Amino acid sequence: MNAMSTSTDAGQERKAPGRPRNAQADEAILEAVLELLNEGQSAAAVSIEAVAARAGVGKATIYRRWPNKEALLADAVRAMKGPLPELAGVSVREDLIALIQANRTPHAKRYGNVTACLLPEIIKDEALGRMHRAVIEPRREVMREVLRRGIATGELRADLDVELTQLMLSGPSMVQSMLRLQDLVPDENFAEKIVDAVLRGASA
Amino acid sequence: MNAMSTSTDAGQERKAPGRPRNAQADEAILEAVLELLNEGQSAAAVSIEAVAARAGVGKATIYRRWPNKEALLADAVRAMKGPLPELAGVSVREDLIALIQANRTPHAKRYGNVTACLLPEIIKDEALGRMHRAVIEPRREVMREVLRRGIATGELRADLDVELTQLMLSGPSMVQSMLRLQDLVPDENFAEKIVDAVLRGASA
Repeated sequence: MNAMSTSTDAGQERKAPGRPRNAQADEAILEAVLELLNEGQSAAAVSIEAVAARAGVGKATIYRRWPNKEALLADAVRAMKGPLPELAGVSVREDLIALIQANRTPHAKRYGNVTACLLPEIIKDEALGRMHRAVIEPRREVMREVLRRGIATGELRADLDVELTQLMLSGPSMVQSMLRLQDLVPDENFAEKIVDAVLRGASA
Repeated sequence: MNAMSTSTDAGQERKAPGRPRNAQADEAILEAVLELLNEGQSAAAVSIEAVAARAGVGKATIYRRWPNKEALLADAVRAMKGPLPELAGVSVREDLIALIQANRTPHAKRYGNVTACLLPEIIKDEALGRMHRAVIEPRREVMREVLRRGIATGELRADLDVELTQLMLSGPSMVQSMLRLQDLVPDENFAEKIVDAVLRGASA
């Protein structure tokens, strides 16, 4: 963590104090999109005007960075999910837990309504659907790679169905969050419990 | 399949030709609600007027049967999900497959957008949330009972986490449908594959 920052940091991906004004405006714009969706506004109803007003920037600032609303929504969803974790690459169990937890960060939970609020529109609107897949597929692919590595090393069964296993790892977490089932299946150690239950059947 | 039907069929639950006019109107009203939601209308936007117009009935016909919109929506979701299957009660595996398949009927799939379209509003609106829980909890309880029975008979591990296992059985199906992942995890034998994968880790 280096608290110092100069203008040469402009291209860096990680947040740092003192980063240039543009990055601050970008973050305010993306947070404004997430706040509006989280309050229950539909993607259709979220206008560039409303985002600009909420973020305290001019519309031109938004249009300079994002060619259209789909691109802005895609970046907002990416920002909500946060960066993919650095995987230790040692045990399949630890890597899978890290991947599930990466979708359950406090930041992602703060915007827990966003995925649910986007879903109806993702289904209706092909451009939004493509946007959503473009955001989630690289994340899904990382989990596939961990599962394939486990098969290759012999940690996992040779005949494991990778796609089905991925659904078994990610599905319960999504449903528990979206249907607000925390009273039935608590958040504590959620990722560990799911991974251990899946691995009990998936181990070689 | 008996094509004959008399007026003594009035109290029966299954559809039959020639059943009384009230049942026909009820069905038209519930289908109208599902169609409007399935087209992407929000629950807030679905008005009694719009339902009456779509179903070809007067508003009074609706108000005679349902005290308010939440009760009408609850019945529509119940109708979409269809009756719970008769469980053979022999093997845990067969019963779990039947329960997952009961949520994946052609009728339920025809209205595949409805759950997704309701979700944002279920989250925002407490009355709708309670309505949704009242519809899904009895169904979830049936699955819990099958799992508890399996623990009691020794088919399932004594230390099985029933709530977590339920989430592992129902979560993948919901996510595959809602995120339209049929290209990655096909519908064919979906229930069997999930149940077998879960049981591999859950069996005693």
